[in-house]
Amino acid sequence: MTLRGKDLLGIENLNAEEIELFLTTAASFKEVGARTIKKVPTLRGRTIINLFYEPSTRTRVSFEIAAKRLSADAINVSVAGSSVSKGETLVDTVRNLQAMAPDVIVMRHHASGAPHIVAKEVEAAVVNAGDGMHEHPTQALLDAFTILEAKQKLSELKVVIVGDLLHSRVFRSNLQLLTKMGSRVVVSGPPTLIPPHIQELGAEVAPTLEQALVDADVVMMLRVQTERMAGAFFPSVREYFRLYALTLARLERAKPDVILMHPGPLNRGLEIDSAVADGPYSVILEQVTNGVAVRMAVLYLLAGGHGEST
Amino acid sequence: MTLRGKDLLGIENLNAEEIELFLTTAASFKEVGARTIKKVPTLRGRTIINLFYEPSTRTRVSFEIAAKRLSADAINVSVAGSSVSKGETLVDTVRNLQAMAPDVIVMRHHASGAPHIVAKEVEAAVVNAGDGMHEHPTQALLDAFTILEAKQKLSELKVVIVGDLLHSRVFRSNLQLLTKMGSRVVVSGPPTLIPPHIQELGAEVAPTLEQALVDADVVMMLRVQTERMAGAFFPSVREYFRLYALTLARLERAKPDVILMHPGPLNRGLEIDSAVADGPYSVILEQVTNGVAVRMAVLYLLAGGHGEST
Amino acid sequence: MTLRGKDLLGIENLNAEEIELFLTTAASFKEVGARTIKKVPTLRGRTIINLFYEPSTRTRVSFEIAAKRLSADAINVSVAGSSVSKGETLVDTVRNLQAMAPDVIVMRHHASGAPHIVAKEVEAAVVNAGDGMHEHPTQALLDAFTILEAKQKLSELKVVIVGDLLHSRVFRSNLQLLTKMGSRVVVSGPPTLIPPHIQELGAEVAPTLEQALVDADVVMMLRVQTERMAGAFFPSVREYFRLYALTLARLERAKPDVILMHPGPLNRGLEIDSAVADGPYSVILEQVTNGVAVRMAVLYLLAGGHGEST
Repeated sequence: MTLRGKDLLGIENLNAEEIELFLTTAASFKEVGARTIKKVPTLRGRTIINLFYEPSTRTRVSFEIAAKRLSADAINVSVAGSSVSKGETLVDTVRNLQAMAPDVIVMRHHASGAPHIVAKEVEAAVVNAGDGMHEHPTQALLDAFTILEAKQKLSELKVVIVGDLLHSRVFRSNLQLLTKMGSRVVVSGPPTLIPPHIQELGAEVAPTLEQALVDADVVMMLRVQTERMAGAFFPSVREYFRLYALTLARLERAKPDVILMHPGPLNRGLEIDSAVADGPYSVILEQVTNGVAVRMAVLYLLAGGHGEST
Repeated sequence: MTLRGKDLLGIENLNAEEIELFLTTAASFKEVGARTIKKVPTLRGRTIINLFYEPSTRTRVSFEIAAKRLSADAINVSVAGSSVSKGETLVDTVRNLQAMAPDVIVMRHHASGAPHIVAKEVEAAVVNAGDGMHEHPTQALLDAFTILEAKQKLSELKVVIVGDLLHSRVFRSNLQLLTKMGSRVVVSGPPTLIPPHIQELGAEVAPTLEQALVDADVVMMLRVQTERMAGAFFPSVREYFRLYALTLARLERAKPDVILMHPGPLNRGLEIDSAVADGPYSVILEQVTNGVAVRMAVLYLLAGGHGEST
Repeated sequence: MTLRGKDLLGIENLNAEEIELFLTTAASFKEVGARTIKKVPTLRGRTIINLFYEPSTRTRVSFEIAAKRLSADAINVSVAGSSVSKGETLVDTVRNLQAMAPDVIVMRHHASGAPHIVAKEVEAAVVNAGDGMHEHPTQALLDAFTILEAKQKLSELKVVIVGDLLHSRVFRSNLQLLTKMGSRVVVSGPPTLIPPHIQELGAEVAPTLEQALVDADVVMMLRVQTERMAGAFFPSVREYFRLYALTLARLERAKPDVILMHPGPLNRGLEIDSAVADGPYSVILEQVTNGVAVRMAVLYLLAGGHGEST
């Protein structure tokens, strides 16, 4: 089993076998992070560029740690105050980076579809680390890895995704991955934050959060992305909390072994109550730990999996 | 002899034996910086995160060089325009970093006590690289190392610390270290910049700078931190220079083998005259060199000193 | 053959033998970038500081990749919001960096001559990565390397340099290198952007771009540096494009095997037509690839070429 494409642009382009390949590879890398010497020589002499057009602590750090634990050379490029401000186009920027012979370009961009344009221009493997409101495939893979650890399966689960669905690339990637693997995705959120025609993509819209949560195996809370909200999508923070925040009382409708996920950063007291975020159902920090393992797998499979021993 | 705690939060928490352990370990690392190949494999496969909430060139670079010369993976996180701006709390940020399994988190923060909060939340060792107006323990350790090189002892010395004592974490850490090791600390500065009850912490306040300097073994000038001065603490730069700047004429009151220290960056012509800063008594650049050795020792003792050979 | 100086401050200071040494060394490093494992142990344990007072993506990344492929430790210092804002002088900043024992300081600065001041203060080798409107020697070396690959010689060529000559350190370094190696440099551009007395430096000023291009072996387009233009140097973008942009029609006056160069970033539709930039004569991306090889050679010769095997 190998990947069909050179890039990881979205879950949309992957089939179930490819998703499973990423996840089983991640499982073999997870124990590296638990060693004293957290380093394998797998990608020694490979060059990985983290090209971030949007600020990010956790995703950039996760990829950088993943690259370094594989012994690759990681180069961070934060595009603000750089040649972009000198009027260079995105394509020219990445062609230039390509000319320096990177093996992988990890890219975050505010415009949906930007990594797809880049992937066509460069020989390097391109990893989409979040593009606008479109996809965030490594987040969906690490979420799947976390669900798999807890439930031993990715099929026949009821996964409830709650909140700002409209602006969420995390939601779009997860919806695709989970339906491809045979699980149900039920969503809830303010009507203004539910994208139209979402049912055609396989999501079920529940009338209320309470109804959505009934017998849930997994609850995934989305961050209210106040920075992406040009207009007013809900009346007030208090109103949002009252109707859509996850509280312990609400979570009791789910299955007893429900797990609670959140892609972070958390808005405590907005979309999630601290008692839930820090409670026994939460696997939020497991998600972060698994993120490093999943990104090691992604970098390995895209940069070094072809004819190189681990 | 081993350290009692997992962290280095301040000199306050250390006893004399621990201080000496840091200093003797630093001595063994100092020669690494003088080699052609300035690298030892000691911390290979360890992950060290430099988490800076305040900008800093010298301290961040010093820690990064120390980490790399120990073969550790160093990850820089400069917190401005990142997930903090997305509303994440400090504790959530560091719990997330912890989930990626770092061995050490080196942290600078504008709030006094921030590293102490963090240390309780994470399994990683936390090194305070400066917290508000509170402590800067690696600075005090490198100052002690520099004094020890010059004087072969840390006890029975007269150390004069001059300037903006009120805002200085460097002063607070040095005062504690030097009194613990048995030296006298005499201070001088504008009355508005001398903290109240400073005598209870072991400092002697001299009536004038001239009197303070008599028979000094060590003179430590503090930077006037104009960026921390919300109000007006002294009438003018000219007035400050006239009363509190260190000049060669003033320094003649000290012992003939006096050494002059400054934590940097220098405000030439404000708290220090260039003739003194660049003169024969100055060990300012030795402090910087020793900073790398001391930070190698700190990282080594906190991350790898337990059952790992050098 | 060895270099006479410890630094690379400009082409001005180099003789033809030194230029050839950089170029032949770069040739031996070029194939490293084409390997799967793009890394040699040559500069293991060396510390290279990239000290950038101006933002730059491509130059900083090129030097960082060069350093890492030589196994050196690369430390990035971007001087904005750091100790410079605390009032420290340039000389104090670099003396402090020197005290941490770097082998090479790669430096970009907005002030012409800044690296020359620094070079006198530090023991480390200083590489000028662009100083104001003065020199950018590694750019001229990578341009020469690219010309040499295409033409097998650097002498007896007609090199046409077009555009904003006044603000261009790339032009100044190239003019010196090419005349030293025995080629003709013919320039063209708006009269307001041609420095006075340029003929005394060996450049020939053509009356029109069309006349300049006749029988050219090499055409080098300069970027219109809108960010350096305090006043109005030309009436409008449209006017500039009409008179000075390189189009395919204009390029037909050059030799059939002409090569087209540009230091980047490109202003498409301003100084260059996309049909030319992306056309068959363009070696623009080869320049970028060669930049890494040339910078590896520079770092190697300055930091490790003395008594260290490759």
